[in-house]
Amino acid sequence: MTQTTLAYPRPITFTGGTIDRADHLRIDPERLAAAWADPRARIVLLDGLDPRPTADSLLATSPVPPEAALGDHALLGLRDDGTPVFVSLIVIKSDEPPVFPPKVWQVIPQLSLDEAALYGAARSLVDWHDRHQYCARCGGKSHPIRAGWVRQCEICSTEHFPRTDPVVIMLAEYEGKVLIGRNARFPPRRFSALAGFVEPGETIEEAVRREIMEEAGVRCGRVDYLFSQPWPFPSQLMIACVAQALDDRIVLDENELAEAVWVSKDDVRAALAEDENALFLPPSPVAVAHHMLRWWLGD
Amino acid sequence: MTQTTLAYPRPITFTGGTIDRADHLRIDPERLAAAWADPRARIVLLDGLDPRPTADSLLATSPVPPEAALGDHALLGLRDDGTPVFVSLIVIKSDEPPVFPPKVWQVIPQLSLDEAALYGAARSLVDWHDRHQYCARCGGKSHPIRAGWVRQCEICSTEHFPRTDPVVIMLAEYEGKVLIGRNARFPPRRFSALAGFVEPGETIEEAVRREIMEEAGVRCGRVDYLFSQPWPFPSQLMIACVAQALDDRIVLDENELAEAVWVSKDDVRAALAEDENALFLPPSPVAVAHHMLRWWLGD
Repeated sequence: MTQTTLAYPRPITFTGGTIDRADHLRIDPERLAAAWADPRARIVLLDGLDPRPTADSLLATSPVPPEAALGDHALLGLRDDGTPVFVSLIVIKSDEPPVFPPKVWQVIPQLSLDEAALYGAARSLVDWHDRHQYCARCGGKSHPIRAGWVRQCEICSTEHFPRTDPVVIMLAEYEGKVLIGRNARFPPRRFSALAGFVEPGETIEEAVRREIMEEAGVRCGRVDYLFSQPWPFPSQLMIACVAQALDDRIVLDENELAEAVWVSKDDVRAALAEDENALFLPPSPVAVAHHMLRWWLGD
Repeated sequence: MTQTTLAYPRPITFTGGTIDRADHLRIDPERLAAAWADPRARIVLLDGLDPRPTADSLLATSPVPPEAALGDHALLGLRDDGTPVFVSLIVIKSDEPPVFPPKVWQVIPQLSLDEAALYGAARSLVDWHDRHQYCARCGGKSHPIRAGWVRQCEICSTEHFPRTDPVVIMLAEYEGKVLIGRNARFPPRRFSALAGFVEPGETIEEAVRREIMEEAGVRCGRVDYLFSQPWPFPSQLMIACVAQALDDRIVLDENELAEAVWVSKDDVRAALAEDENALFLPPSPVAVAHHMLRWWLGD
């Protein structure tokens, strides 16, 4: 199976997972209980929402502890050999004070493509349960059902599904240059592609044009889809696009961006090569924006 | 501005809205209050979640009533001439018993492209507020803030954003035929494209391949994006794709589909022409699946 589109053959972090999500088990209590009782079954170990590396593995798993309850776990799927993989929906936070940047950013680049994809799905799902313990319709307590892929309200029985928020992330292109921006929260010189949430009532293409107009005041016409990436902080679907700008005059929205600049292929090449004279620092290779710049160079 | 992609120039219902969402007003209480007080300001009239047609208009609007409160309304945006357009977040349900099919299906095909897009955004937003009156984190009551584009919990202050659920909808292609399916809830002979929600931790392309495999047992390789459509029942982003199947053997998941068949261009042409001898009844022109079949014919 191709991991991304043919237009960009490099692997992108959090894509390319090989686990079979086995959704037929989610709705079949007997087969789900059999998977849970399978002596090969494993549980992905998390520390809060982060991986809990062991001496043997960066994304460690354990057998199912005898005291563990199926109802507190989500089925992530079946490995190629049929091994069921679960994750606990009870978030166990470490006593250590949080450090910045979080440890997770040191671990993720060292995971295999498949491990990162499994971790991304697990993190998004566990975090969603942790932040959605109550029914948004009536305020009642809810609990996980269907192998952790649904929550149901204990008062009004409404079913709630994990959120995945579509986000457009895009390069506007004009006369051999692309538009990149620096969020005010980023360190100096760190630039990325512009991005924003798709709102109810708009297409991907309309969201791309709206966000570029809002953030940089640049009007765009044609929009082309490039590739996508699930982003587990907390649960976005990053939809990467390229838009054709109709002019290059920038009117910055300072609530959104500290800077926005048009950069050439030479500028991008120097940044990705981490040349000390580069105009800007590129986005992390973990981020889809990094791959959008590589795609634009024709790498 | 192009309404859809260049690959498919026909208009698709709920796309092509021209209203300026004016997100800068959402975070600026003074300018928002000025828009609300603008004597030109209009409120889209709904009956429950459906349009409330008048003798003059299928998607009628009224001036702001003197007793109305800004905090109970969402700003949909500004028209080209600067007219602010709002919608009430208080759902007023009609006393009439619901009929099937709902009246909304009679009105939508008669709306202009721009009216349908405005209605779609309004319906999704109003419905989201109606179904999310409580905080999913703590169970407290929440209320709309930022011109109706956020809700905030009155207990724990958590902010909640409107949901938009990405859904992949796709044609699998094999040797000059495409795969279509009949949901068990559909009437006899009514077929559409296969579809399913994108889950946390997967790309658009991975979701397309997973759904076709789950529902019809067909393995696919390359996936190409076609176009997208916001679908306000309640708030999906329909992401239309075409996938290249690796073989044509179907293993039906009867929990998902009643039937799945491979159809030729002649079969699709007869169905779209509503030929009485056609193999199947096509999806409604309001649905993106209708346009996917037209795109496949090269119309």
